[in-house]
Amino acid sequence: MSRSAEPRRGIRLPELASTDRAALDALLDHALVGHFALVADDGTPAVLPTAVIRDGDRVLCHGSTGSRWMRRLASGVPAALAVTSYDGLVVARSAFESSIHYRSAVVFGSCAPVTADKEHVLDLITDRLLPGRVAEVRRPTKAELAATLVLSLPIEDWSLRISDDWPEDEPDDVAGPAWAGVVPLAPAWGDPRPAPDLRAGIEVPPSVRALTD
Amino acid sequence: MSRSAEPRRGIRLPELASTDRAALDALLDHALVGHFALVADDGTPAVLPTAVIRDGDRVLCHGSTGSRWMRRLASGVPAALAVTSYDGLVVARSAFESSIHYRSAVVFGSCAPVTADKEHVLDLITDRLLPGRVAEVRRPTKAELAATLVLSLPIEDWSLRISDDWPEDEPDDVAGPAWAGVVPLAPAWGDPRPAPDLRAGIEVPPSVRALTD
Repeated sequence: MSRSAEPRRGIRLPELASTDRAALDALLDHALVGHFALVADDGTPAVLPTAVIRDGDRVLCHGSTGSRWMRRLASGVPAALAVTSYDGLVVARSAFESSIHYRSAVVFGSCAPVTADKEHVLDLITDRLLPGRVAEVRRPTKAELAATLVLSLPIEDWSLRISDDWPEDEPDDVAGPAWAGVVPLAPAWGDPRPAPDLRAGIEVPPSVRALTD
Repeated sequence: MSRSAEPRRGIRLPELASTDRAALDALLDHALVGHFALVADDGTPAVLPTAVIRDGDRVLCHGSTGSRWMRRLASGVPAALAVTSYDGLVVARSAFESSIHYRSAVVFGSCAPVTADKEHVLDLITDRLLPGRVAEVRRPTKAELAATLVLSLPIEDWSLRISDDWPEDEPDDVAGPAWAGVVPLAPAWGDPRPAPDLRAGIEVPPSVRALTD
């Protein structure tokens, strides 16, 4: 259930709030990275950037069992996961009305460690971050699995804001000389760079080629 | 002063930690967006994405005086501002060694509202987000200034991690059949789209043209 319309979440511009679960899923599936906010033992806030993927009604992430903040998240402390996509610059006729096109989700809740199907979930993560890669690499070792902490956050309590409108200038400004519009922004992959120790004759694999096709 | 080498910040891979202030500045000047983590009255974490710019030894952001979380930040509660740039995918020969090229800064501290030179600071923000735009638009009105909250966070207590290495595969994997390398990732501007209500004869301004030049 989304609380995106509840004032206690601090929604100032209710017209930007969305309860569209498909739009939330589209954002989570597009962004692939997020920021966890959590509270340290001393009551101060902490923030942890990490890769995240969606699998049905949960968000998954992974890290090292040696990571202090990952372990704290795994303990079930309250967390807020922000997933944000900056999609363009809104160039209005005034600085005041200028803004950013964005999609901004926050998923509230507590993470739990994934244990039973950890290897399967790691495959899901790998294949979301680089589709097709699982089939191209060896299986993880027991030591690698043991060193990896996988966390799951249920998609139950969330908010979503989408800013995708044209500039909304006052009539006096529209009648004036300034330009207005939107400049789209999107991440773009560059050409793959082979590792210096890559052995001769190993071609760029389909997973990597597909990124830039 | 950076605390980036202090274990209490949860740095797991000390080789990624940096105390290079110039690298911090380069990241803040490149990213232009960040995520504030803070703690709500009930002790739960909150997270707020926002545009941020650097001005010397401070980070500046702005928002509406009607924003609950902006007002809470302005009250001086402890905050952690994450500024992250995802710069590429590290495609190792195993899923385990695969990772992301990133630059990740966290600035710890308390925000204070900017009051004395608010109009000047808003110009700084506008011209960092879209260089040259201040000269192309009218001055802000008193009402617009009154409706805008500008916050300043000192750059004193910060951490920085930079992941920019090649994959580090085990010798057995290097000898195997899998490709390894890095696929760069960077935001790219698209073609400017004029607003539907743009009057005829108003050309795309130099500020916007410069984004894609």
